[in-house]
Amino acid sequence: MTSTAVKELATDGFGIENLPYGSFELEGETHLGVRLGDHVIDLKSLISKIGGLDEEVARAASASNLDLLLAGGKAIWSPLRAWLQTTLKDEEASEEVLASAVPLNEVTMKLPFTPADYVDYYASEHHATNLGKMFRPNEDALKPNWKHLPVGYHGRSGTIFASGTDVIRPKGLRPGQDSIPSFGPSNRLDIEAEMGFVLGGSAPRGEVNIADAADHIFGAFLFNDWSARDIQNYEYVPLGPNLGKSFASTVGEWVVPFEALNAARIAPPKRTFELAPYLQDPTDEHGEFGLDVTLTVRLNDQAVSHPPFGLMYFTAPQMLAHMTVNGGSLRPGDMFASGTISGPDANQRGSFIELSWGGKEPLQLEDGSEITFLRDGDTVTLQAVAPGPDGSTISFGDCVGTIKPATD
Amino acid sequence: MTSTAVKELATDGFGIENLPYGSFELEGETHLGVRLGDHVIDLKSLISKIGGLDEEVARAASASNLDLLLAGGKAIWSPLRAWLQTTLKDEEASEEVLASAVPLNEVTMKLPFTPADYVDYYASEHHATNLGKMFRPNEDALKPNWKHLPVGYHGRSGTIFASGTDVIRPKGLRPGQDSIPSFGPSNRLDIEAEMGFVLGGSAPRGEVNIADAADHIFGAFLFNDWSARDIQNYEYVPLGPNLGKSFASTVGEWVVPFEALNAARIAPPKRTFELAPYLQDPTDEHGEFGLDVTLTVRLNDQAVSHPPFGLMYFTAPQMLAHMTVNGGSLRPGDMFASGTISGPDANQRGSFIELSWGGKEPLQLEDGSEITFLRDGDTVTLQAVAPGPDGSTISFGDCVGTIKPATD
Repeated sequence: MTSTAVKELATDGFGIENLPYGSFELEGETHLGVRLGDHVIDLKSLISKIGGLDEEVARAASASNLDLLLAGGKAIWSPLRAWLQTTLKDEEASEEVLASAVPLNEVTMKLPFTPADYVDYYASEHHATNLGKMFRPNEDALKPNWKHLPVGYHGRSGTIFASGTDVIRPKGLRPGQDSIPSFGPSNRLDIEAEMGFVLGGSAPRGEVNIADAADHIFGAFLFNDWSARDIQNYEYVPLGPNLGKSFASTVGEWVVPFEALNAARIAPPKRTFELAPYLQDPTDEHGEFGLDVTLTVRLNDQAVSHPPFGLMYFTAPQMLAHMTVNGGSLRPGDMFASGTISGPDANQRGSFIELSWGGKEPLQLEDGSEITFLRDGDTVTLQAVAPGPDGSTISFGDCVGTIKPATD
Repeated sequence: MTSTAVKELATDGFGIENLPYGSFELEGETHLGVRLGDHVIDLKSLISKIGGLDEEVARAASASNLDLLLAGGKAIWSPLRAWLQTTLKDEEASEEVLASAVPLNEVTMKLPFTPADYVDYYASEHHATNLGKMFRPNEDALKPNWKHLPVGYHGRSGTIFASGTDVIRPKGLRPGQDSIPSFGPSNRLDIEAEMGFVLGGSAPRGEVNIADAADHIFGAFLFNDWSARDIQNYEYVPLGPNLGKSFASTVGEWVVPFEALNAARIAPPKRTFELAPYLQDPTDEHGEFGLDVTLTVRLNDQAVSHPPFGLMYFTAPQMLAHMTVNGGSLRPGDMFASGTISGPDANQRGSFIELSWGGKEPLQLEDGSEITFLRDGDTVTLQAVAPGPDGSTISFGDCVGTIKPATD
């Protein structure tokens, strides 16, 4: 059973199983919408045409972005999704749905939510091992803590941008001669292909139990944590990355509801050590909380790698439980990202520092050219797909940025 | 020339040279105020009684906290301070000033501003050397980058609290036997006695020139970056501190206008290496940008140390220029803290891990007892003074927190 509207609009990847949220601008107004095929359904418009939604839910969904839905928590976003799926399937509502559908090529996508605090994890064993080998060649690649907790750090929320925002090549102090650094534009500008998760509701005293963590995870999105490896490498001891990352991060256009990923649930990798009770893998009727999402990294439209999120050592509920176990409170709009996603194979690496092995082994592209780090004018696009229910596909849309030259 | 109001209210430390801003709650309403002696002048009340302020300035100053002043930038906060000093000195306004003065013991102090992004630096050479010796005994205490740039990292904005907020002992993974960590309440709970600086205006493309940096620094405040040393020590490699810090930080009650510290300006320490141009020490008519502020750390009312902010290797304008040189944008409400302030003498150390040398040499208190790390029930108060104009003193008020037991 489906409706004329869904038959006309839905595509594989963006059917009613998915319905990712985005914030779009059209003729000077910014509204929240859900994607159906190559259209965005304007929620404010649809809600004004069709009743039946609780007033508070309707108000949150009629806003310009996800902030009110996140503030309201699952009690608000869960009925909204149920209402949307019912309404879109309802033949009687087809006319109103079609009247609220805007072609994507007519809109500008904005940041889907206002990031509160942002934690970046480091949860890919292959990435952490690769970086450890390159940054600290004389030590064990993984530090002793790595398999006991999701290592992470806070990033800069104020420089998280919407997909499509240009990335200006950052300047900073880079390793120089005789231990004296030199100042200038980064020569080793890179991506980090990641998944981000945005949180809703609040936990003012922290300590979100891992069994309840999924209730706070609104959805998942693509995330590019642009990184200046030379600046990062010089500055990061002993307090971690700062200016090598804080110039820009890009959020994908669409936030896929966590519920839409239920069919993508898989077991995370086998644990080397028993995890502390607060991190022990939860399950629910959909299984464990690993997610079988496969990313694609495109450089100027050539695919260069396919990072497998399913191999991440720690799951999203573990990242959230960890972040709050010390009493660190949760606010709506808090987000975390997974850290670079890399698999064991060369074409599964989620950064150019890995793909070119520290710049020493340039990556050969399909068109015969080669690359180490990003050049001015390069455009990087992250994409991802996951299995949806009944053989469908869940797509994440694009997370795009183009490198512009450093300022004078 | 002064007024009856100032004669009646002002005290040394809190005279009209200072006029620090705070957010106070009285009878369910929260207003912005300036401190004069042991009273707070309610700005909304004063402005409603006396005209002469530009409408936009009046609106920003009549709010519940500093957020609108910070958003407005120096063009808003500078005329407000000039008007306040003129008004308070004006005998004809004395009645209205006295009518707007509320005794401090009748109010509850709130967070003076909403922190946007928060960067914590590590700018005391003595502190960084002490911690390096303790955390990395087999390496050089200072990393090669330390004297070339202000090392820092992002902290959690959502867990920055008003002075007086209790601090619940955090739980987390701590170093255990045979490389397997154990989980439980921190056994090495500590303070970090710091100065914070809150920023105003904006710099959407980053790159605040060091010569202009002071125009973006609204004011300075005491800051306690509570730290769980055992959790921090286990987690911090390679990406820096996270849960060892993110459970709580405390902002002092009063934000001292940067202008009120002009008489406290001193030269920073002699530079070992020439700094990169973007960090080279600026000067203006008040001299260089070191600040002769002396803190006092009190444990349950006994003074335990006197950290000298004047010895910090990097100044506030340098910290701001560094934070934005990579294009990292500045938002109103962004803040940074200096990192723990420690001097060369044992009684100038700004943390208990230094005062007790990693817990190995308990600190002897005046009352004959001794302490290593913080115990449940301990109250820590930070205070500070700086020289003001004409022999006056600038005081910072209190930054207080009491340790409560870990949750079950």
